[in-house]
Amino acid sequence: MAGGSGGGQLSVPPGFRFHPTEEELLYYYLRKKVSYEAIDLDVIREVDLNKLEPWDLKEKCRIGTGPQNEWYFFSHKDKKYPTGTRTNRATAAGFWKATGRDKAIHFTSNDHSQRIGMRKTLVFYTGRAPHGHKTDWIMHEYRLDDDQHHHN
Amino acid sequence: MAGGSGGGQLSVPPGFRFHPTEEELLYYYLRKKVSYEAIDLDVIREVDLNKLEPWDLKEKCRIGTGPQNEWYFFSHKDKKYPTGTRTNRATAAGFWKATGRDKAIHFTSNDHSQRIGMRKTLVFYTGRAPHGHKTDWIMHEYRLDDDQHHHN
Repeated sequence: MAGGSGGGQLSVPPGFRFHPTEEELLYYYLRKKVSYEAIDLDVIREVDLNKLEPWDLKEKCRIGTGPQNEWYFFSHKDKKYPTGTRTNRATAAGFWKATGRDKAIHFTSNDHSQRIGMRKTLVFYTGRAPHGHKTDWIMHEYRLDDDQHHHN
Repeated sequence: MAGGSGGGQLSVPPGFRFHPTEEELLYYYLRKKVSYEAIDLDVIREVDLNKLEPWDLKEKCRIGTGPQNEWYFFSHKDKKYPTGTRTNRATAAGFWKATGRDKAIHFTSNDHSQRIGMRKTLVFYTGRAPHGHKTDWIMHEYRLDDDQHHHN
């Protein structure tokens, strides 16, 4: 699935744009992904965020042919140290750094609302921490709450 | 295809919204429709505009489950008089009235741009012409240029 130069020439009918809500991203796409369930139209690619600069994602994660200013992907977290819990968010050109507070994402149905996961916001800096220059690249990293993995 | 109460439960994958460009509407959807070609995901319904009020279109032309504030449909023009060319745009509750100038729609490829059709803007009035009360309902009526019907 990864690789190939054009990429993203998935069969999205003309006129359709991928503008998922956060609930759809978490409750449909990410939940199915982590439980290896089939996704109707599998438009979200897997990438290795440590090997790609933000500007590389534009081509790699293109969906259809329309103009795009947001890109969606799945990525495994890379541990900074084999025994630790910190995430390695460095690339060749810079690093992603968390900013602000994480936000809770809820799943809402007719009569109730339930927290299903969290969203972390990160900013891309070129260079190496603790130095580095802030860029305009923003990433939202969504994760499911642990108990979302177990029941479907 | 017409009829059925729920309507619009077509298989649009989660996260996808129908936001076609005018070029896609004319050059893909309408062109295929008038030449009886297959449409990948046939989400635009046929309606009789003389039999439906604007507010009836919301349910009838729903696409997927997301919030919508624009509705798309195909409709045959009804002649006001059998021998004339004027269009009957009356409904039980009111009528559609053209406003402003028609706008040309172009098809653009790498190296050229070509006029393929026109867009007329209409406003819905309740009551009967020449009286009637203007509403906030706006319709864009797209038509292909004649020569677009003949070649494909």
